[in-house]
Amino acid sequence: MKKIRAAIVGYGNIGVAALEALLEAPDFEVAGVVRRDPSQRENIPAEIPVVASIADLKGVDVAILASPTRLIEKQAKEILAAGINTVDSFDIHSQIPQLRASLGETARAHNAVSVISAGWDPGSDSVVRTLMEAIAPKGVTYTNFGPGRSMGHTVAVKAIEGVKDALSMTIPVGTGIHRRMVYVELLPGYELANVAAAIKADPYFSSDETHVIEVDSVDALNDVGHGVNLVRKGVSGKTHNQMLEFDMKINNPALTGQVLVCVARASMRLQPGCYTMIEIPVVDLLPGDRDYWIAHLV
Amino acid sequence: MKKIRAAIVGYGNIGVAALEALLEAPDFEVAGVVRRDPSQRENIPAEIPVVASIADLKGVDVAILASPTRLIEKQAKEILAAGINTVDSFDIHSQIPQLRASLGETARAHNAVSVISAGWDPGSDSVVRTLMEAIAPKGVTYTNFGPGRSMGHTVAVKAIEGVKDALSMTIPVGTGIHRRMVYVELLPGYELANVAAAIKADPYFSSDETHVIEVDSVDALNDVGHGVNLVRKGVSGKTHNQMLEFDMKINNPALTGQVLVCVARASMRLQPGCYTMIEIPVVDLLPGDRDYWIAHLV
Repeated sequence: MKKIRAAIVGYGNIGVAALEALLEAPDFEVAGVVRRDPSQRENIPAEIPVVASIADLKGVDVAILASPTRLIEKQAKEILAAGINTVDSFDIHSQIPQLRASLGETARAHNAVSVISAGWDPGSDSVVRTLMEAIAPKGVTYTNFGPGRSMGHTVAVKAIEGVKDALSMTIPVGTGIHRRMVYVELLPGYELANVAAAIKADPYFSSDETHVIEVDSVDALNDVGHGVNLVRKGVSGKTHNQMLEFDMKINNPALTGQVLVCVARASMRLQPGCYTMIEIPVVDLLPGDRDYWIAHLV
Repeated sequence: MKKIRAAIVGYGNIGVAALEALLEAPDFEVAGVVRRDPSQRENIPAEIPVVASIADLKGVDVAILASPTRLIEKQAKEILAAGINTVDSFDIHSQIPQLRASLGETARAHNAVSVISAGWDPGSDSVVRTLMEAIAPKGVTYTNFGPGRSMGHTVAVKAIEGVKDALSMTIPVGTGIHRRMVYVELLPGYELANVAAAIKADPYFSSDETHVIEVDSVDALNDVGHGVNLVRKGVSGKTHNQMLEFDMKINNPALTGQVLVCVARASMRLQPGCYTMIEIPVVDLLPGDRDYWIAHLV
């Protein structure tokens, strides 16, 4: 069986995890890693090319974009235009429909496939939310994140005057409500009370219960674990009180990297266009023949 | 928008629940109910035809087979041969690949679609199991059923000499192991000890912890609630100890009826052939346009 040749674009937390997942996958071959400074090989195995541009790699079937969300659209369009599939974990929920339309147009024009927003949320959680909505069509779904670090909130804190380093933890308190535990190192001459007030006034925090705690070392708190708890109580047919729940405690980059590899595989089985994970049969996330999985998992 | 015209074949617990789900669905119209004795209307609304054969109904797009598992193959083949889609909740896991091959052949020959084994297990659980396998490819998944009644085990007890009526409850004790709580009414002249020994020696029970309890009325224990707890601890990429869990406490016929309506809808969007739920994009279980759900659920 011909292996799928995948390139990884970007080599941060997610790129590292995607490479690990590719190396473990039975049906993939790593075409190379694309990063700004290709002289930095870090722990990339010697046989894997590290290059500055995907054009320097040969026979790439699919590019795994492990880049910041804001770069995805431009990168994906360039790579799709070369007839190479792309997958990403674009995570601004409100902009997903627009991105799907935009990449879908480029993908169809160049006979390629793009799978977007494939991480855990958006991503695998989206699949579970959709299934829950289908099997209990009336009701409310709560997505409870954490405990784990929020990148968006952490960046917002770091931008506040007097903050040297920061970490914002998302703590689920149920029914989709979250507490923010913010750990900060302060620059000399700044008062915790003032910095805390500025954080609590920021739009990222102003509607949530927020606690700001000064620490000696933010780095000492570093943990890439995360979690989610999806709960739906709803109605199937005319029967109320159907209780559905999905719970996950995971290493965040590892899960995201694995999901990206799953959708890279699925991209080889889809018609040209752009897809979110809820549009892909879950069996196509797995290697090999459908028949095997139907016999083992259905 | 033209509504999907669905017929229900069989009017037991599942047929009743499927009718309720159809009546609540915005995109369906009930073509009729097919049952052996069409003079028995029970609580079926007066405007819905009740007939002895699906051939007596007009313009049926899809037939929801709410019949015993052993009748499914024959019924489905006859209905598919008339160019009508079929959906069912066939539940003998080991025979699913064979049924899929057999109905797939008939479906393709008559330009129709069949979705099989669409209930909760097999069914919605299969989707979750497949997703879990994809996002943590190494590891073990445990499917823990209950508490709830097992039809297969109940039927096995009823066949034992001296049993007037019975109910076998499945109790999850973790890691896919189940305890059987068997409630029996005895016929006059039979001893509990002897009947209990016969039950425990039956292949349905011989490998599980089984308790047999005599009751005055099995009917007084009647409850169609059920549950499942799916747990996977596995590896994403090279990262171990990823913890995934899906938990459901539900009215069993109501959930099954709802799932059947979801796949009846999906059947209208699939190419001719036979499918299990893991082969269907979850968004196609929902009514209306993909774009709406992508904006709301991804």
